Amino acid sequence: MSRRVSVEEAAALLRGADDILLLLHQYPDGDTIGSAYALALALTALGKRVRPACSDPIPRKYDYLTEGLTFASFTPQFICAVDVADTKLLGSLAETGKQADLCIDHHGTNVEYAANLLLDDSCGAAAMVVYAVIRALGVPLDRRMAECLYTGLATDTGCFKYPNTTPAAHRIAAELIEAGARYATINESMFDRKSRARMDLERLALAGMQYHFGGRCAVMVITNRMVEEAGASEDDMEGLAPLPRQIEGVWVGVTLRQKADGGFKASIRTGDKANAADIAAYLGGGGHRGAAGCAVNRPLSEAIDCVLEAVANRVDGITE
Amino acid sequence: MSRRVSVEEAAALLRGADDILLLLHQYPDGDTIGSAYALALALTALGKRVRPACSDPIPRKYDYLTEGLTFASFTPQFICAVDVADTKLLGSLAETGKQADLCIDHHGTNVEYAANLLLDDSCGAAAMVVYAVIRALGVPLDRRMAECLYTGLATDTGCFKYPNTTPAAHRIAAELIEAGARYATINESMFDRKSRARMDLERLALAGMQYHFGGRCAVMVITNRMVEEAGASEDDMEGLAPLPRQIEGVWVGVTLRQKADGGFKASIRTGDKANAADIAAYLGGGGHRGAAGCAVNRPLSEAIDCVLEAVANRVDGITE
Repeated sequence: MSRRVSVEEAAALLRGADDILLLLHQYPDGDTIGSAYALALALTALGKRVRPACSDPIPRKYDYLTEGLTFASFTPQFICAVDVADTKLLGSLAETGKQADLCIDHHGTNVEYAANLLLDDSCGAAAMVVYAVIRALGVPLDRRMAECLYTGLATDTGCFKYPNTTPAAHRIAAELIEAGARYATINESMFDRKSRARMDLERLALAGMQYHFGGRCAVMVITNRMVEEAGASEDDMEGLAPLPRQIEGVWVGVTLRQKADGGFKASIRTGDKANAADIAAYLGGGGHRGAAGCAVNRPLSEAIDCVLEAVANRVDGITE
Repeated sequence: MSRRVSVEEAAALLRGADDILLLLHQYPDGDTIGSAYALALALTALGKRVRPACSDPIPRKYDYLTEGLTFASFTPQFICAVDVADTKLLGSLAETGKQADLCIDHHGTNVEYAANLLLDDSCGAAAMVVYAVIRALGVPLDRRMAECLYTGLATDTGCFKYPNTTPAAHRIAAELIEAGARYATINESMFDRKSRARMDLERLALAGMQYHFGGRCAVMVITNRMVEEAGASEDDMEGLAPLPRQIEGVWVGVTLRQKADGGFKASIRTGDKANAADIAAYLGGGGHRGAAGCAVNRPLSEAIDCVLEAVANRVDGITE
């Protein structure tokens, strides 16, 4: 169990510390990167030595947040995890995470591994919590910090589209734009740019889209062969899973992605007509009401049958 | 020339009027619909008779804004155009528009056809101007008005993604959410739902994507045959033109859409490396720096050659 701390208490802990290691979660996204780098910049402005650390490389699309920044080497005296609900999400840094002095997070599922925890699960993004901490530290927001925080905010709210976009999220966005964040450029690179390989992969995947239960369930398959044909990398896979559910009339969208061993990983997305977690649970997986997943280690045609059986059993009124 | 009026003066004009006709522009989008209906609701709340009018039907996707609303028949005593920069954009209502007592708009290109003009071109959406007018009228925002205004705001700012998204746009969004706007549902239906025919059409169009000039120019063709094969309607075409430009490394994205007569309409999109208006001008068309268009009345292979010639001539440094 962590000691729960307020924004002011978290700021006081950071103000009293030096040689601070900031931990990002594995497979880093815009929120953990933006939040940690904004905090790193603010603490640097206070004259502290600080260093962000992540078990995985920062994807190239976030170069605009990290370029030109260098951080000193030091033996950490204070460890702060940002947007990390569980040390399991730290990859190779999990052991380091167990020593965390502070965690700044917005996940209601935080397992309280850090000595001190600043948690606000009313925030759609960790960047909103970090914004409050930077304000409490009294560091003026510069353009670079604002762009880090904007990136986090836009990432986790789907650019202000998702249900987690609170009035506070919009008001912070207004402040970040006023602090100079080049939001239009950031949004274009995050939301409106796709690699050629990604376009090819979408085309191949769309060509095989299957409709079941009178169009209420759509299944999209991504085989290793398609990935190879398109020349797609792991980065190119991001954001594919929601596609089948975006089709009008679809209650349950399923993306079956082949794994290296030939089996499949099912990503299930639903709206208010079905519960993705229920469907995934039928197949031994789990998740949330709107998005869940499971492994289906079968050849393709059997894997599809398994998923359809789960849908038929767990979704009321979906029969043909 | 119009008399320019302030928000307060526009509100005073409306407060002094009755039997008010509100004009929407042709091919109505979320901003003209949301702005006009929000104003209609506010004026109705003040006890006035009011009626929105548009030369074209309101697309079905906006049913949530209009359903259950009925408006009286009357001979208009006051005509107010909303989000209409020119009477030419009123379709069959152009003559009515010439009698407009007031125009509420955000287009810097407004031709000042109305007796009075409330214009604020710092606003990304007409809905922001109408928001200010409703505030000045002293009508409390209810959920329904808030959803109309949110729809306008989200439509014209690309859900807060585009360069026209000001701090004020975010702050108004916060107010609208607090007034009860179900923004997540609105955003899902506006931005994250596609018809099956649209998905099929995207697949067919992506399959024929051509890359030229070492990948700096992408050309996507949509033939009448593809439209037929996908079973797509005019509504399904919306938002296809930006696709080629979204590909990484592409300076110039061109969508060639076949017309009923067999010729093509070229939509040209560019970023900061090229000027779409220059390219379109070479082919006798026009538009803005980032988005322009022209007709290319040739068979397909010649049409593509024409476009590539224009690109080669008007974009510095794009040779292979």
